[in-house]
Amino acid sequence: MNEVPEPSPELLQRAGAVRRAAVDLGMADDGQRMQALQAMADALAERSDALVAANREDLDRSASEGLAPALLARLKLDAAKLEGAIDGVRKVASLKDPLGRRDLHRELDQGLTLERVTVPLGVLGVIFEARPDAVIQIASLAIRSGNGALLKGGSEARCTNEAVMEALKAGLASSAVSPDALALLTTRQESLALLKLDGLVDLIIPRGSNELVRFIQDNTRIPVLGHADGICHLYVDAAADLDKAVRVALDSKTQYPAACNAIETLLVHRSVAASFLSAAIPAFRDAGVVLRGDAASVALGVPESATEADWRTEYLDLTLAVKVVDDLAAAADHIRRFGSRHTECIVTEDAAAADRFLSSIDSAGVYHNCSTRFADGFRYGFGAEVGISTQTLPPRGPVGLEGLVTYRYRLRGDGHVAADYASGASRFTHNDLSL
Amino acid sequence: MNEVPEPSPELLQRAGAVRRAAVDLGMADDGQRMQALQAMADALAERSDALVAANREDLDRSASEGLAPALLARLKLDAAKLEGAIDGVRKVASLKDPLGRRDLHRELDQGLTLERVTVPLGVLGVIFEARPDAVIQIASLAIRSGNGALLKGGSEARCTNEAVMEALKAGLASSAVSPDALALLTTRQESLALLKLDGLVDLIIPRGSNELVRFIQDNTRIPVLGHADGICHLYVDAAADLDKAVRVALDSKTQYPAACNAIETLLVHRSVAASFLSAAIPAFRDAGVVLRGDAASVALGVPESATEADWRTEYLDLTLAVKVVDDLAAAADHIRRFGSRHTECIVTEDAAAADRFLSSIDSAGVYHNCSTRFADGFRYGFGAEVGISTQTLPPRGPVGLEGLVTYRYRLRGDGHVAADYASGASRFTHNDLSL
Repeated sequence: MNEVPEPSPELLQRAGAVRRAAVDLGMADDGQRMQALQAMADALAERSDALVAANREDLDRSASEGLAPALLARLKLDAAKLEGAIDGVRKVASLKDPLGRRDLHRELDQGLTLERVTVPLGVLGVIFEARPDAVIQIASLAIRSGNGALLKGGSEARCTNEAVMEALKAGLASSAVSPDALALLTTRQESLALLKLDGLVDLIIPRGSNELVRFIQDNTRIPVLGHADGICHLYVDAAADLDKAVRVALDSKTQYPAACNAIETLLVHRSVAASFLSAAIPAFRDAGVVLRGDAASVALGVPESATEADWRTEYLDLTLAVKVVDDLAAAADHIRRFGSRHTECIVTEDAAAADRFLSSIDSAGVYHNCSTRFADGFRYGFGAEVGISTQTLPPRGPVGLEGLVTYRYRLRGDGHVAADYASGASRFTHNDLSL
Repeated sequence: MNEVPEPSPELLQRAGAVRRAAVDLGMADDGQRMQALQAMADALAERSDALVAANREDLDRSASEGLAPALLARLKLDAAKLEGAIDGVRKVASLKDPLGRRDLHRELDQGLTLERVTVPLGVLGVIFEARPDAVIQIASLAIRSGNGALLKGGSEARCTNEAVMEALKAGLASSAVSPDALALLTTRQESLALLKLDGLVDLIIPRGSNELVRFIQDNTRIPVLGHADGICHLYVDAAADLDKAVRVALDSKTQYPAACNAIETLLVHRSVAASFLSAAIPAFRDAGVVLRGDAASVALGVPESATEADWRTEYLDLTLAVKVVDDLAAAADHIRRFGSRHTECIVTEDAAAADRFLSSIDSAGVYHNCSTRFADGFRYGFGAEVGISTQTLPPRGPVGLEGLVTYRYRLRGDGHVAADYASGASRFTHNDLSL
């Protein structure tokens, strides 16, 4: 952690202010938090022209500094994109409250009652590159779930981010939620020091490149929500319907190849490799996908040779590695060895093989006969997505508002003491009550 | 992480074998896992004499090496303690299966169905000091929840641990679960290198001193279940019933002072400080508790003076810090600043004050009018406890079998592709189905 500086007194003070505001925010009720989001949306709408103008400034400066066209496109916040982002805030306002859900309610003894209730995490630390609409999205998710947030955007977007944050705070100022619940960090030093705010920040959410995520994971003790790699696999089983396999494989690779849930490696059962590849190779070629195969698949017509490095590569592009495997177990071994526990699919008409795949592969998503591109919070019906986590512990997979909460045990008694249960004078009843 | 060595090829190979066995174990059904635990219990019972003899060897050697009496007591595994541990295995066998619980079941579109189902974490890495019965307990919790485990015990207990592990594996050999799902690490080098087995170990469970836990937390990227400190607070509010307050405070401190859920600091509202302390000081003195107070409480008769270091100290002994505070907000600020987010209690007859305390203090447990000593998996009715976590993200607080599982999304379709939804040819229905 040598590269990560200690937090400055000023950063500690700002983070402390966010934390204090978050304590009050955590006690705001559902209606107050909904109303705060509507006020944020209204303030953004009122300042629409100024926000687009601030973004224009960022775009002009970044273009003159030679920012790549793809990044300029992500940086752009025009009136239409802003309107979409504002609609997003109102959408998040309308999502079901993730707080105050009771999933355990138990009488331990007469008059001694235990509850487990969802509560906010506290303060989120969000680090993202380029896209200024991410500030709007994450800020609304944070407030909706009762969390404060320290946000650090890319320097390309600094004028936009400052104008957006000013609008969001102006909105909050007309609500029951303190504007102090949100803060924008502006220097690179601050963004790095954020990683050391253990005790003041409860969860880091990186939104950006794999390199950014990996750097953050390697340099903080605060839990990180997200994933560095998305090396997803599709396995074409011996009992696959080959038309279905080609259709699902094509969609999984080409529907949006830069996404983390696009496949990077195709595993094909030896017994159907010749027939599957004879249909798949021209289909992928027509879709502009370059195939790189092991010796067996090259012998069956795959044009380029793969090396072991290919099994470890997230192309995020129209390139796909292909490997012929002996059976489902060999496919599973390959996935366990090279996968990143994101999303994997089996195409088969054999229900037992599908069940075996779905229960033996330990990725966040395990699919049967459908595209890996469905691995997404919106498609799962969560309404909004914070990110996709490939860690083993929950929250895992596409994470919606529910991933921004934790729970707390509340125990209410009337002078109950443990000694009475140790002595046998009292006994636990452990009666579950209605939730 | 300079002190932590890289895993040896042999350790990597052993951990790989546990991981492979864990994959099969993860597919074992409830009955098979229950039966495996019964077989483990039977094997321990059959070898009871040999186990006690192995422990005798450890005890004799450790005594001659000058191990402290308290540690010798923890090391001891006599016939009665072993019988208790065997009963514990059978109890864990009877606990409700934590696997295969479906908490989301949703039709995304006709024929495209999403489930979220609990699955094992994979492999647990367990590091504990002295107590050999912990091997038995943790191994049974691991197998019950479908997880493999790499266990490392203290060198004082090496004969006992090896004999116990041999018995457990012999039991598994007569069950549907492979004995390879459990492995005992024997050298200190291995136990340290365990911390670097990212990708092979999914959760580290330390059972031992605060120093052990803190060292592990600071030296691994693998999630750690547990807590270093347990600095619990009891706040006597202005509206407290003072008899109740004395009774609950005494139990919270003295019922088992070495426990993490015993209180270390007593916060007293200024308006009741004189009357509360006039009753509490003699009561604590009679119970052998040394009080250390701030200036205001010393002025009211607390015999020793506290310094700021006392607010940060987990005494784990019959010493208690006392501070007079202006109001509930000041108590909450003190807890936020010095607490370890374990368990805190308010004693008050004012329901609104209680609600404010329970919703504004972000500890794993927040209590009203009852002893902090109830913070325990058995007392909560979980049947068995893995440990108590003070981290913000779940699992939090006392953790039972449920803390050893995660979930996986399963999506089943029939050739469904994302492009159809992007084009508008198909639309998501997002119909929730019965769980």
